[in-house]
Amino acid sequence: MNSSIIRYILGNVMRMEACFLLLPCIVSLVYGEGVGLYYLGTAIVCLAFGVVMAWKKPKNYVFYLKEGCIATSLSWIVMSLVGCMPFWISGEIPSFTDAMFETVSGFTTTGASILTNVEALSHTALFWRSFTHWIGGMGVLVFLLAIIPLSGGSNINLMRAESPGPSVGKLVPKMKYTARILYIIYFGMTILEFIFLIIGKMPVFDSICTAVGTAGTGGFGVKNDSLGSYSPYLQWVVAIFMILFGVNFNAYYYIIYRHFKKAFKMEEVRCYFAIILIATAIIFANILDRCVSIFDALTKSVFQVASLITSTGFSSTDFNLWPQICRTVLVLIMFIGACAGSTGGGIKVSRVIVLFKTMIKELHSYIHPKSIRKVNLDGKPVEHEIVRSINVYIVTFVIIFASSVFMVAFDGKDLVTNFTAVLTTINNMGPGLAEVGPAGNFSNFSVFSKFVFMFDMLAGRLELFPLLILFHPSAWKDLISKRAEARKF
Amino acid sequence: MNSSIIRYILGNVMRMEACFLLLPCIVSLVYGEGVGLYYLGTAIVCLAFGVVMAWKKPKNYVFYLKEGCIATSLSWIVMSLVGCMPFWISGEIPSFTDAMFETVSGFTTTGASILTNVEALSHTALFWRSFTHWIGGMGVLVFLLAIIPLSGGSNINLMRAESPGPSVGKLVPKMKYTARILYIIYFGMTILEFIFLIIGKMPVFDSICTAVGTAGTGGFGVKNDSLGSYSPYLQWVVAIFMILFGVNFNAYYYIIYRHFKKAFKMEEVRCYFAIILIATAIIFANILDRCVSIFDALTKSVFQVASLITSTGFSSTDFNLWPQICRTVLVLIMFIGACAGSTGGGIKVSRVIVLFKTMIKELHSYIHPKSIRKVNLDGKPVEHEIVRSINVYIVTFVIIFASSVFMVAFDGKDLVTNFTAVLTTINNMGPGLAEVGPAGNFSNFSVFSKFVFMFDMLAGRLELFPLLILFHPSAWKDLISKRAEARKF
Repeated sequence: MNSSIIRYILGNVMRMEACFLLLPCIVSLVYGEGVGLYYLGTAIVCLAFGVVMAWKKPKNYVFYLKEGCIATSLSWIVMSLVGCMPFWISGEIPSFTDAMFETVSGFTTTGASILTNVEALSHTALFWRSFTHWIGGMGVLVFLLAIIPLSGGSNINLMRAESPGPSVGKLVPKMKYTARILYIIYFGMTILEFIFLIIGKMPVFDSICTAVGTAGTGGFGVKNDSLGSYSPYLQWVVAIFMILFGVNFNAYYYIIYRHFKKAFKMEEVRCYFAIILIATAIIFANILDRCVSIFDALTKSVFQVASLITSTGFSSTDFNLWPQICRTVLVLIMFIGACAGSTGGGIKVSRVIVLFKTMIKELHSYIHPKSIRKVNLDGKPVEHEIVRSINVYIVTFVIIFASSVFMVAFDGKDLVTNFTAVLTTINNMGPGLAEVGPAGNFSNFSVFSKFVFMFDMLAGRLELFPLLILFHPSAWKDLISKRAEARKF
Repeated sequence: MNSSIIRYILGNVMRMEACFLLLPCIVSLVYGEGVGLYYLGTAIVCLAFGVVMAWKKPKNYVFYLKEGCIATSLSWIVMSLVGCMPFWISGEIPSFTDAMFETVSGFTTTGASILTNVEALSHTALFWRSFTHWIGGMGVLVFLLAIIPLSGGSNINLMRAESPGPSVGKLVPKMKYTARILYIIYFGMTILEFIFLIIGKMPVFDSICTAVGTAGTGGFGVKNDSLGSYSPYLQWVVAIFMILFGVNFNAYYYIIYRHFKKAFKMEEVRCYFAIILIATAIIFANILDRCVSIFDALTKSVFQVASLITSTGFSSTDFNLWPQICRTVLVLIMFIGACAGSTGGGIKVSRVIVLFKTMIKELHSYIHPKSIRKVNLDGKPVEHEIVRSINVYIVTFVIIFASSVFMVAFDGKDLVTNFTAVLTTINNMGPGLAEVGPAGNFSNFSVFSKFVFMFDMLAGRLELFPLLILFHPSAWKDLISKRAEARKF
């Protein structure tokens, strides 16, 4: 295994995180909050580590899937460990487990919180908390690819391990440029949302935090009632941007390069909008009698559907109190999730489409056992290998899901809480139902359960396998045997 | 499509059911219940239809998977339609939907009931209700194969469509003999259980109904509290026989033919017992403080684990009131189900094993992308085609599951009720949790939901695909086009 390149990448990740940590320092200067010093301190220590680790350039830049997965998983764990330090040291979140939970939840764009009173936090902490969503949304390694010349290696393995969705399309032949284009779209849309929010008279600080939280489809709010107290205009802006950030970014690429036909023909995107429409219609019809006006019902239903299908997790109302049919629809769209190649979580619309088509194909093979039929997406046959990997993904998803529900059940909470808590973390959503509903939070779980949730959040964000590989003995065998060899000579 | 053979098989199924319907008539004679006349009437009409339909022998006996699936699905639907008639006509279950629900639940060995007061039924009805489990347990077409010389065709397609589990092993080269051996084991074990129950001083009628209910892993009881009021000895007998009927019948075949080593080396059977042990241990530890003695806790935990993993659904206590961890464990073993090749339902232990191994294989392929590794079961590699079909099975299971939960959600019941109601019907279990727990029943659902559940029960019993094929247009195209041709000339 090429372990020197993993060290080099980890070093770069830490250097980059040190830079990011300067942003909350600026916030603390603006608001005159002394807590910024903890962020500065963490940044300096982090930078020192990063510089040392990335000092020696690796001998070669050859990069296989195994290295990609290990580098990605370790990067995310290191990022979270560093990122939680200021929360913990400053005492704003006194327990280490809780601070780590909050940071993992931030970076993985989950948005599940252990805080009961968000408004008690300093502006610095609130900003950093929301900003982790923005960093985690597009993926930190993609960012690395965009700005650091990691030349020579097969970088796509890095990106494949980090990107949401079954397949990573290279938009342009050079990976570096693909990553840059994605980040430009991401950055541009965040700014655009910020502007729309400012127009709606949202305070600047709230606008920044909400915009970065929407962009990463994260869901940390700066108010205890999430977005409930903002005007309908602001809720609509956020709802629309949530939906937009849940669209496969390839569609935007096509639009920028004027391939409009291609963009509008994307089966996944069409299906995504169809699901949003249907879910909204059902919920709208069922909450109409509890709302003050038709407009109010429409705002609430669009907002919640957008928030949950994109796995953002903002809430404008306590949907835990809605009729059962609404709760069921919400749980189902939580499972589906957003488009592949977006910042959203969940199983992903394209996977669901392929799964449906696989089922129909199987049915067909019962009727005509000898015919060979391929699963198509966007008019092109889906490679057998991708269909297989999607099936394995679902199987693994179910196994991790069931094991997690089993493990957190020892806390003695009710089934709906456990079930939706696991669902919401593994899908990087945020709120669940019952005790972890929009009005509740994760603070009452045991330390053990919190670590199970952290694992689920990371597994969900990294599409299961990269993280699982860390638990495979052979991932470490090479490292250990190399060290043993080094000792010999 | 060879539609004449489907007609012929349906005719034979009806003839057979007419014979089975004479058994409740005997019960009604013994107890002097006039209600037996309805059963006799149904039997006569059914026989007449059967004789007419099976009068003309089919031109050829060639039989493909498509015919097998359609014949199986239609047989089960016809069986249920005929079987529910006496309940309905006699007025013991006044609503047709309810009568149909109860019969489908019986034949599919689900054991979910819409009756609030079972003890109000006549002995005749109670017997027929339990006996449908016995008929459905082994599969009516397997029975057909065992007694009717359906020579010449590739009968395995019939059996494959009806047998629980991913693959049907031919025990002996001739399908007919395999079917006979299976039925002899089945019949022998039922008699054995009956004898043990009689020894424990259970009334003869109760013993018969309980024995046939256990054999089919069905779960209809003759008392309102299921088996709660019987002595611990009787509960242990039933528990042990439930576990035995959940074992892959191939193991018994091996034992009868003195291949002991083969029987004890079966990975699925070992795993099945391991799961039972672990689940019992967890539940035992958690209900100890609520039980009068250690023995009582052991009886209750073994009984419930046996009842739910084999999808029988008898209950000796209201486990809905147990601590959350117990309920979660029970829901998880409900998903797993019994062994393939047994009368039990669920996903099946062997499928779960293959799924786990597939996940580990995938993980391995991330580490060593070029190595080829096969999934093994019982030391032999599992064919690629079977691994694929299991993956597709799970995907289809998840899709049907989610759609059903969605459809029944319109009734406005809580999530746990809907979720476990679908789980319990698709896995042919019986009781769920909350409103459909051991103390509740399905009577409060709407007619639409009840039909969804009937579909789920049949889909679960026939391993999903054979039933889904009835909804595929091409299954009917041939029939229609043939009729159109006939009209032409």
